[in-house]
Amino acid sequence: MNLLDHDALEEIALGATVLGTGGGGDPTLGKLMAQQAVARHGPVQLLPLDQVPDDGWIIPTAMMGAPTVLVEKIPSGTEVLDAFKMLERRLQCRAVATVSAEAGGVNSMIPMVVAATLGLPLVDADGMGRAFPEIQMVTPTLHGVSATPMAIADEKGNQVLLETPDNFWTERLARAVTIQMGCSACIALYAMQGATAKKALVPSTISLAREIGHTLLTCREQKRDPIAALTALLHGRQLCEGKITDVRRRTERGFARGELDIIGTGQDAGTPYKISFQNENLVFWRDGQPEVTVPDLITIVDEQTGLPITTEALKYGLRVIVLGIPCHPQWRTPGGLALAGPRYFGYEIEYIPLGNDE
Amino acid sequence: MNLLDHDALEEIALGATVLGTGGGGDPTLGKLMAQQAVARHGPVQLLPLDQVPDDGWIIPTAMMGAPTVLVEKIPSGTEVLDAFKMLERRLQCRAVATVSAEAGGVNSMIPMVVAATLGLPLVDADGMGRAFPEIQMVTPTLHGVSATPMAIADEKGNQVLLETPDNFWTERLARAVTIQMGCSACIALYAMQGATAKKALVPSTISLAREIGHTLLTCREQKRDPIAALTALLHGRQLCEGKITDVRRRTERGFARGELDIIGTGQDAGTPYKISFQNENLVFWRDGQPEVTVPDLITIVDEQTGLPITTEALKYGLRVIVLGIPCHPQWRTPGGLALAGPRYFGYEIEYIPLGNDE
Repeated sequence: MNLLDHDALEEIALGATVLGTGGGGDPTLGKLMAQQAVARHGPVQLLPLDQVPDDGWIIPTAMMGAPTVLVEKIPSGTEVLDAFKMLERRLQCRAVATVSAEAGGVNSMIPMVVAATLGLPLVDADGMGRAFPEIQMVTPTLHGVSATPMAIADEKGNQVLLETPDNFWTERLARAVTIQMGCSACIALYAMQGATAKKALVPSTISLAREIGHTLLTCREQKRDPIAALTALLHGRQLCEGKITDVRRRTERGFARGELDIIGTGQDAGTPYKISFQNENLVFWRDGQPEVTVPDLITIVDEQTGLPITTEALKYGLRVIVLGIPCHPQWRTPGGLALAGPRYFGYEIEYIPLGNDE
Repeated sequence: MNLLDHDALEEIALGATVLGTGGGGDPTLGKLMAQQAVARHGPVQLLPLDQVPDDGWIIPTAMMGAPTVLVEKIPSGTEVLDAFKMLERRLQCRAVATVSAEAGGVNSMIPMVVAATLGLPLVDADGMGRAFPEIQMVTPTLHGVSATPMAIADEKGNQVLLETPDNFWTERLARAVTIQMGCSACIALYAMQGATAKKALVPSTISLAREIGHTLLTCREQKRDPIAALTALLHGRQLCEGKITDVRRRTERGFARGELDIIGTGQDAGTPYKISFQNENLVFWRDGQPEVTVPDLITIVDEQTGLPITTEALKYGLRVIVLGIPCHPQWRTPGGLALAGPRYFGYEIEYIPLGNDE
C-alpha cells in the first residue's frame, strides 16, 4: 500500500509546481495544511486509478480563485470538508475516495487535506495532468462528465450548490460566487463513479508529481544536472536558456495575464524569446514565431537548481531555462484542443504538437 | 373562499404598483403570466395568514434582478417552479402554500403563477407591505428568519442553492448569481412554518393591493377623485402637486439610482420638490428639506387619473401628485429602521414618521 507521509507531500508539492506551468497557485500553503492533516490523522493512502471500484463514487476537491489571493487569504481548513460533505448529501452517497482535479499547483495538496482528515484514499490521477485556469478545462468534460452538482464553501460559512446545463455555465456561476466569497473558495465537483473515472481522468499524475519532486531534490543533493533528469523523466526538451529582461502583467477578469521577455544566453546567445501567460504559461515564442503552445506544458525553471518558478515570482534578471513538456494525449484530440488550445485563449495560431524526441 | 380570477389579478397588479413606490418592477409581464396560469389551471385561492396551519411550510417565491431587465427578458414560466421545487427537495417537505415576499410591483404576481400552476393557495400577506431592493429587507429578517436555504433558477436550466450565515450574505451571493444569469432570475427563499409566518409577515397585503386597484378603477369609471379615495384607504396624505422638471438617472451596482425635480403647481405653486430614488422612491424633499423618508411609502401618481408612475416611466413634463403613505409599524422599530431606514441607503438624515392625520 502506497502511503503518503510528510516527506512525500514535500516531493509532490514540488513536482506539482513543475506541472503547474507557472500557474495553479503556489502549493506552499496547501502543503502545510496537508502536512498538518497528515500529522494529526496519519498518512494518506494513494489508490491507483484502476483499483477504484466501478460503482464507487469519487469526489474531486479543490480550491478555486486567484492564485495571488490564495497565498494571503488562509483557509480555515474546514471549508473544503464542507464542500465535500455538501456534495455527498446532494448525491446521497458516501464517496470511496477523493481525487485532485488539477495535479499542477496548490490543487495537488487540497484533496490531501480531505483524504487525511476523513480517512479516505486519494486516487492517483487528476483531471488535467497539468494546471488550467477554468473549471470546464478538465478531461472529464471531454467524456461528457458534468461538473455539477458542484458545492462551493468559504471560511465564513457560506455554502452554494450549483446545477448547470453545461460546464461552461458552471465556470461562469462559480467564478461569480468565488469572487464574492473573497476571490478564493473551496469546491467539490465532477463527482463520478469509478467506471467513468477510469476513462475520464489522467492516471498516475500524483505519482508523477512525486517522482518529479524526488528527482529535483536528489539532483540538488547529489549535485547532478536537474535539467537533463527532468527532460528525460517528462519526455520533454529544453526550449531555451536565458535571462528575463521584462515582465508585463495585467489583471483581467480575475486572471493574471501578461508577457515575459527572455534574451538567450549560452548556446542561445542573443535570441529573443517571449512567453505569454494567463495564470499558466500559454505560448512560447522564438524570435517572434510561436514554437510551443498550450495544452503542451511550458515550465520555467531556475537555471542552476532546476526548481520551478511560478508566474507571481517572475522578475527581471532571473536566469532561467524554459522546458517544453508534451501534454496528455487526450488534450491533443480535436475536443481537447477546442477546450484548451491556443485559440480558446485568444491566440490566432495553430497548435504545434511538441515532439518529445528532438 | 376567496378566489382570485383574471379580473382580480388586474386589480392586484394595479394596487401593487402603488405599493411599489416607483420600484418593485412593472407588474405587467407578471400579470400576463399569472392570468395565463389562471386561465389554464383555474383561479387562485387566497388564504388568510391566520388560517395557515402552524406546522405547515410556506415558501415565498419571487423574481430578482434589475426592473429594467425584467420587462425585456421574458421568463419561460417554469424557472419559478424550478426554484420552488428545488427548495422543497432541500427541505424535504411539501409546502402548503406560497406567498409574496414583496407585495409591491411584479412580485405581487410571480407567486400567483406558482399557486395557480401547482394548485396551491396563496397566503394573503407579504414580507414588506411595499417594495424594497435587497433580499434581507423583509420583516422576516426582523424576526430572525433565515433567507436560506434559497433556490435561484433561470430559463437556461441553471439552478443554485445558497446556504449563508446571514441574510446580508444571501443578498450578496444571490445578486452575483442573478447578474450572471442575465440580471433576472426566479427565486424561492425564506421558507417558514405557519407559526413563524403569523409573526414575521405583513398580513392582508394582497387584499389591500386588490382594494387599491379596485378603488382606482372604480374612480376612473365613475369619474370620482382618485386621490382622496387613495389617501383615505391608505391613511396617507398628498405631499405635493406639480410638474416634473428634471430626472437624473444613473445605474450604480445594478440599481437605478437618481433624483427627480418637481416644481409645485396649484396650491403648491412655485415650491421646489425633489425625490431621491434607488429603484424605489426613498426621500421626498420640500424646498431642500427632507420631509418623508423610507421606510414610509412615497408614491408618484398621475395628477388626473391617480394611476401610479414607476421609476422607469418618470419624465420631464409629467403632471403628478406625490402621496405619502405610512409603512407597516414593524418598519418603524429600531431594527426595522436599521434594516431599511434612510441611513442604510446612504442618507445622513433621521427618519421622520409620516403622520396619517395631517
